[in-house]
Amino acid sequence: MKVVIVGGGAGGISTASNLRKLDEEVEIVVLTRDNQVSYSPCAIPYVLSDRIHSFDDIVMRTVDDYKAKNIDVMLETEVTGVDSAKKQITYSKNGVVQTMNYDKLVLATGGSPFVPPMKGVDLDGVFKIRTLDDGKQVKEWAENCKSALVTGAGLIGIEIAYAFKKMGLKVTLCEMLPQIVPRSLDPDMAKILTDYLIEEGIDVVLGQPITELKGEDGKVKKAVFEDGTEADADMVILATGVRAELNLAKMAGCDCGRWAILVNDRMATTVPDVYAVGDCVESYSAILRSNTVSQLGTTAVRQAKTLAQTLAGKRSRFNPVLNSMVSKVGKLEFGAVGLTRSFAQQNSIKAVVGKVEALTRARYYPNAKPMNVKVICDADGTIIGCQIIAEERVAERIDTMTLAITQELTCFELSNMEFAYAPPVSMVTDPLVIAVEEVSKKFN
Amino acid sequence: MKVVIVGGGAGGISTASNLRKLDEEVEIVVLTRDNQVSYSPCAIPYVLSDRIHSFDDIVMRTVDDYKAKNIDVMLETEVTGVDSAKKQITYSKNGVVQTMNYDKLVLATGGSPFVPPMKGVDLDGVFKIRTLDDGKQVKEWAENCKSALVTGAGLIGIEIAYAFKKMGLKVTLCEMLPQIVPRSLDPDMAKILTDYLIEEGIDVVLGQPITELKGEDGKVKKAVFEDGTEADADMVILATGVRAELNLAKMAGCDCGRWAILVNDRMATTVPDVYAVGDCVESYSAILRSNTVSQLGTTAVRQAKTLAQTLAGKRSRFNPVLNSMVSKVGKLEFGAVGLTRSFAQQNSIKAVVGKVEALTRARYYPNAKPMNVKVICDADGTIIGCQIIAEERVAERIDTMTLAITQELTCFELSNMEFAYAPPVSMVTDPLVIAVEEVSKKFN
Repeated sequence: MKVVIVGGGAGGISTASNLRKLDEEVEIVVLTRDNQVSYSPCAIPYVLSDRIHSFDDIVMRTVDDYKAKNIDVMLETEVTGVDSAKKQITYSKNGVVQTMNYDKLVLATGGSPFVPPMKGVDLDGVFKIRTLDDGKQVKEWAENCKSALVTGAGLIGIEIAYAFKKMGLKVTLCEMLPQIVPRSLDPDMAKILTDYLIEEGIDVVLGQPITELKGEDGKVKKAVFEDGTEADADMVILATGVRAELNLAKMAGCDCGRWAILVNDRMATTVPDVYAVGDCVESYSAILRSNTVSQLGTTAVRQAKTLAQTLAGKRSRFNPVLNSMVSKVGKLEFGAVGLTRSFAQQNSIKAVVGKVEALTRARYYPNAKPMNVKVICDADGTIIGCQIIAEERVAERIDTMTLAITQELTCFELSNMEFAYAPPVSMVTDPLVIAVEEVSKKFN
Repeated sequence: MKVVIVGGGAGGISTASNLRKLDEEVEIVVLTRDNQVSYSPCAIPYVLSDRIHSFDDIVMRTVDDYKAKNIDVMLETEVTGVDSAKKQITYSKNGVVQTMNYDKLVLATGGSPFVPPMKGVDLDGVFKIRTLDDGKQVKEWAENCKSALVTGAGLIGIEIAYAFKKMGLKVTLCEMLPQIVPRSLDPDMAKILTDYLIEEGIDVVLGQPITELKGEDGKVKKAVFEDGTEADADMVILATGVRAELNLAKMAGCDCGRWAILVNDRMATTVPDVYAVGDCVESYSAILRSNTVSQLGTTAVRQAKTLAQTLAGKRSRFNPVLNSMVSKVGKLEFGAVGLTRSFAQQNSIKAVVGKVEALTRARYYPNAKPMNVKVICDADGTIIGCQIIAEERVAERIDTMTLAITQELTCFELSNMEFAYAPPVSMVTDPLVIAVEEVSKKFN
């Protein structure tokens, strides 16, 4: 059997590796446009901020490493066509167009950065950050800049804005919506983070689309906002999200939903022998009970695990998602899972909220840090979302809440749960418990 | 209504505070032998090691603070009798014996340190550590010592041994059993911790009971082990656990089990209007489905919450326990929940184990630390225990596993769960997932 995988990102390459562990015989080919494979795009901002010292550090494996596992990775290869009746793809490498037959095809085509409509977007110094090469180019360009503007205040946008600040640039972070991290945080929690970014010297411009980028000698120099104000911008990063790449899926005849390719819980598309994983597919939301996009590396990796099982003839299901996330910017760690209050309201779910400022350690223990926790429950008290910001120990608490939401626990149930305690590492009553107790009180 | 609470530790004082929040009218009296109330005994080792600078720091509230809440705390008061027919207690304060009537009586009498049978245990310089005064006396004595021996290598024993080392003493930590932390860790995991303690310069003596303490001029000088070897000991700490204090419970006519007072899930004893919480009661084990003792501060605090609800006429249940714990010694954080493999085997439960060494952050991220995880499942793959040791981020992972065990998840289910990821704070596949995948493989 020959499995052909289009795309060398987390979804594609993990499918290849997992499948090889399950089946030593199957022929596996991975085709990617990129000139590298198996690196961590999530780590690019941390290389820019010099927290990680080199782009080389974030490359995990080479083409030779895959060859040793009998996985054929073809770099700088563009797949241009799919014929799902013939079970054949067309690809171009070094200008030569060829075809390849498959028994099973995996579309792991990811997403392309969304470019918002604005004048001057083609000027030199305007970048997206998706690949390692993008990262390298940005780093090089930034070294000759005094100012930078990042548009889009999602995770990547914030991380990159902070990195530029660490590089010594004058930095503007702007977001069309009236708050940062709109997908994962409510406005009140986002504000804690915004205040921190401002404290770190970043100009944060909210609720203002950019209408134009102005240049000199073909190089970007300034950004103009809707209200006419301007910001210095010797470089501009478009961190305005990605859209699923659907061209090949459409050629293959795969059904697509509102945002991306439709797959079942075994990662099969609607076309026989064509599968898909990663940023190019839709996921099923565990809370909304409808489709959503989950463009997270962890989602791609978990989908790849399921797909490898499917291709190896084993039974495995990809579960509905909660889109749990975490990030760290400077000293602040922030994370979220499930629905925000805003999103619940948009979906006509009555939200009951508990919000507390607790501590990361016993009150009397040195270096106890404030921990802000917000828990969102539905009208029955079932937990449907959580947001946490603190200088430490956020990620694992998000995981606990992910499990609580998956198990459909109520705030009442969680408030009686056991939490491990020692003065150097936690409070005798955990911040999560204090938060769900706050929610519980509202049901009295 | 008058509620009389005997004991001012976590169980007693939390019952008082929680009850006051629920009922402004009820009369609340707390009687304690101690000369302080509302301090954190778990923090005493960290004051000894100077991580916390003063014993004053770990006192949370004074008698006046409680008076302000209309809670009457009587210090240095010994309750000597209970007549549950008359609903009356007898107590002695400043040599004067008096009686007090109650409508509801709460026994939060805690435990007394177990003193193992050995010669010389009455020598000066032999201490137990239970109260703040014990802590102060130990600190004062230690300042004139060159060597110290701690017997009992549970959490408190280890924390105190480490504290003495930080004070510059020659330290011996000894344990009758062949491993440290026998209640929570399997021998292989305990060894990681033992190696670290040895690396820190602590002499660890395992599998050797002390037969005799030798003194000079009435002061302890040496400990003699069963095999005849000796260790220097200018002071000795008995950290050999506590036994529930049952005298008053027996006077009241409460039924006791093998170890402690029997209570139902609303914290009522078998005698009408007599309740009990904390180290003096038995809990129900969620896994073994039989009684156990859970002498943890967090258990006392959670029981107090339930009892306050009961006393206020509200419905609340105290859930079966898993005895989740965490501690930090020097740079190492270690935690556990549920059954160890050893304990499972003693209870004829067939255990299937996954053990991995992963990392606390992405491999390429600076300061990623090794994280040792051991997961124990039963023959169906249901998770029944977990042990973790690392330099960071242990406690919250124990909490996630506590929830997984409470929900009776299998290793297969947990391996498909979402975990939040960002390179500075976690691995793309969480160490817990890697561990449960290891277990899952054994079922193929």
